Amino acid sequence: MSGVFVVFEGGDGVGKSTQQKLLAQRLADAGVPHVVTRQPGGTAAGQRIRELLLDPTTGDLDPRAEALLYAADKAQHVGEVIRPALERGEVVVSDRYVDSLLAYQGAGRVLRAEEVAAVAAWATDGLRADLTVLLDLEPGAGVGAKADKDRIEAAGDAFHERVREGFLALAAAHPAHYLVLPARRSREQIAEQVWRRLAELLSEPAGRLDP
Amino acid sequence: MSGVFVVFEGGDGVGKSTQQKLLAQRLADAGVPHVVTRQPGGTAAGQRIRELLLDPTTGDLDPRAEALLYAADKAQHVGEVIRPALERGEVVVSDRYVDSLLAYQGAGRVLRAEEVAAVAAWATDGLRADLTVLLDLEPGAGVGAKADKDRIEAAGDAFHERVREGFLALAAAHPAHYLVLPARRSREQIAEQVWRRLAELLSEPAGRLDP
Repeated sequence: MSGVFVVFEGGDGVGKSTQQKLLAQRLADAGVPHVVTRQPGGTAAGQRIRELLLDPTTGDLDPRAEALLYAADKAQHVGEVIRPALERGEVVVSDRYVDSLLAYQGAGRVLRAEEVAAVAAWATDGLRADLTVLLDLEPGAGVGAKADKDRIEAAGDAFHERVREGFLALAAAHPAHYLVLPARRSREQIAEQVWRRLAELLSEPAGRLDP
Repeated sequence: MSGVFVVFEGGDGVGKSTQQKLLAQRLADAGVPHVVTRQPGGTAAGQRIRELLLDPTTGDLDPRAEALLYAADKAQHVGEVIRPALERGEVVVSDRYVDSLLAYQGAGRVLRAEEVAAVAAWATDGLRADLTVLLDLEPGAGVGAKADKDRIEAAGDAFHERVREGFLALAAAHPAHYLVLPARRSREQIAEQVWRRLAELLSEPAGRLDP
């Protein structure tokens, strides 16, 4: 595959979708073919899975069922959107990917992290992001916090601190594939750093994707 | 766990739900506490997953996504319905369980059987049926075939023959936990054989559930 797979990760309200838009604009200005998408919900089936996951009326989801639903969304997303775009040589920019599943499920402290990681790896057929931009922010300080909290957002700050630690641990394990940025920086500063890092990836010869 | 977990398996139209009702009636007549349920769809979340899976308008599901959705339904069903009932010492009678996932996905010839089995085992936290009644019938000869075919039923006879072979192979691998019956027998004959086998299980001392 000749494309480049970029993911924005981090908690709610850190500015992922804003940065995704800014990056898409720069890619469009530079004439780089790209796809902007998100998880969960980047496909028709995924949108229905997303509704099921985030609807407070669904009731208590079994932790394994919840992880498997997120994994199903990822499988559909990779097969229908991400892999075809990468095979066309395009840049794929996704709001969330596997790290969100691992960080949120890990923070729940019910499931074994390595088991969830194995399910996620199977769901995505082993496809990893070339670059994950982690927008890091202490819990409770969302940049654009929403008034209406959904089921997941309604969880407490201790949970979100564990989510944050989960994201940071994933970045620390594979630093060459991560760009960790404080989400409090100005959106222009962040966008510039992301663009510079991506420009490096785009200019590198094939083979850059090896771990 | 002190309950007994009974599953009816087989293709569409072999009489699973009829036999499930007959067994439930005998359990009721005998005063045995029991739960009658099904997969997919035995819970509120599972019902939504079932709709998503069987709705022809969902479009082409990625094979991994489809397997993960079935697995999510199973996880929710085990956690919310089956395990609690078994812990209360009840008999659980389910229309389909893990074998359906393995037989149908295996027949699709896209996914590796042992990988799907690993996902299913994780989804159910390793819970196996004490008795699986496989109602075996050659494809195209459904006892109560429906006029409106859903997405899965519309697949061809070659597919359904592979599904049948998949079910039979699973039964052959663990014969002590299976009762394989020709679905062409009268419903009364089948019901009697199922009841006799279950009565043995119910009268055995604890420890009967070991493989």
